[in-house]
Amino acid sequence: MPKFKKMGSLMIILVFSMLISPSFCSQESSQFRRPMILEYPDGGVAEQEEMNLECTSWRIAVEANNLNPWKTIPQECADYVKNYMTGKGYKLDLERVSNEASVFAKTVNVGDDSKDVWIFDIDETLLSNLPYYSDHGYGLEVFNGVEFDKWVGKGMALAIEPSLRLYHEVLSLGFKVFLLTGRSERQRDVTVQNLMNVGFKNWDKLILRDTEDHGKLATIFKSEKRTEMLKEGFRILGNSGDQWSDLLGHSMSTRSFKLPNPMYYIP
Amino acid sequence: MPKFKKMGSLMIILVFSMLISPSFCSQESSQFRRPMILEYPDGGVAEQEEMNLECTSWRIAVEANNLNPWKTIPQECADYVKNYMTGKGYKLDLERVSNEASVFAKTVNVGDDSKDVWIFDIDETLLSNLPYYSDHGYGLEVFNGVEFDKWVGKGMALAIEPSLRLYHEVLSLGFKVFLLTGRSERQRDVTVQNLMNVGFKNWDKLILRDTEDHGKLATIFKSEKRTEMLKEGFRILGNSGDQWSDLLGHSMSTRSFKLPNPMYYIP
Repeated sequence: MPKFKKMGSLMIILVFSMLISPSFCSQESSQFRRPMILEYPDGGVAEQEEMNLECTSWRIAVEANNLNPWKTIPQECADYVKNYMTGKGYKLDLERVSNEASVFAKTVNVGDDSKDVWIFDIDETLLSNLPYYSDHGYGLEVFNGVEFDKWVGKGMALAIEPSLRLYHEVLSLGFKVFLLTGRSERQRDVTVQNLMNVGFKNWDKLILRDTEDHGKLATIFKSEKRTEMLKEGFRILGNSGDQWSDLLGHSMSTRSFKLPNPMYYIP
Repeated sequence: MPKFKKMGSLMIILVFSMLISPSFCSQESSQFRRPMILEYPDGGVAEQEEMNLECTSWRIAVEANNLNPWKTIPQECADYVKNYMTGKGYKLDLERVSNEASVFAKTVNVGDDSKDVWIFDIDETLLSNLPYYSDHGYGLEVFNGVEFDKWVGKGMALAIEPSLRLYHEVLSLGFKVFLLTGRSERQRDVTVQNLMNVGFKNWDKLILRDTEDHGKLATIFKSEKRTEMLKEGFRILGNSGDQWSDLLGHSMSTRSFKLPNPMYYIP
């Protein structure tokens, strides 16, 4: 019966046309359609999302000053920190902290006695050493002072743009700007040159570690220097730093602003 | 020719069995298979990832104490905060902060004069008011003191489990535990009952706001109470709180631990 023969051929054509049609499965499964994200080379997405959660939690603990002293970032957060530092996250956080600082600065009634001070730390606050850290695993390697000093000696650190804007703004509002850094007095010239080259000018004091300050914890060194400022009659209203040791201790500022830095920890 | 008739029937059965087989399409499309994430109802994934970045940046700023005073969470972070508070992120952060506090507590050489103190705040530190906040948009609604007091009056706040473990641990290490809360003296009984019901016992002092403390900023009220402790000869070594106003000010503890809380801000 040719009718059945025809029907059989028709059926075969039908089946194959359905099988090769690209729209068949997508339509068939449209009720399950979901957006797609890139798969990471070394693991599934669930695993990757778990790691993101863990590393974000770790980073939150860094920024909230909850972590006990640490020497390197967690091995498993190496990619996370690299992606954060080179991607949009770090930029967003830098912009937010400068914006909030700017809002606060504008609320201050700056006196006309030139005694209202804003303190800035230098490394990872005004200047970015990202080119150095990109060669050293973004905090995955234990800090090497000798290597880092070679980098500082080149005077090639970059301006952190949102900090540069804040810097100009607090100056124009009438604050005195004091720079308070853990860099050594021996690095004064290259530091001044580097700062000026990328747009930082007109600070009132640049305080570096002198011979007697080496070996002091940053918290102690910086607190002592702030105490001296208070003794000289200055009012410390704002303080910007990427380390909690820039901000805590004694003689603290009225408001302080913690810039993001998940790469290293200075006690 | 029954042969063709048979073939036709066979083909029909084959086609339908393929169509209804759940594995058919997934195998056919395996070369396009990618991990899937849930689609958000109101936007694409790129937009959603952008929002996640923004809201994570906002949350980082909350936890790092960079934000100027705020009354509600950003409208656009409503889902983000809800997901964080009810999902894995909040739990992870709570566990991390208690673990770090525990590591620190064990390094302390607790004296045998019963003068070493660990301070705990109560709300969102020992006790969770999540059932209340889930009914009030997780911080999206402006704080309503009258409504919140009704909730407190029920005495139904939950234990924050990682804090309960830390609480028992610092007690067993020999610390005295002082509870220092912005709750009112009028809420003493229900607070004691609530704390005991969920496992908090054996504190040494429970300090609430008395009549003269109402209207004081939390930072001032808590600093004054810490100063009194120092005058009584206590050494404040640890302090756990979900607000920076629990931790900053004067007479600060040796180490402080900031529990996560993106839902509200107390100055």
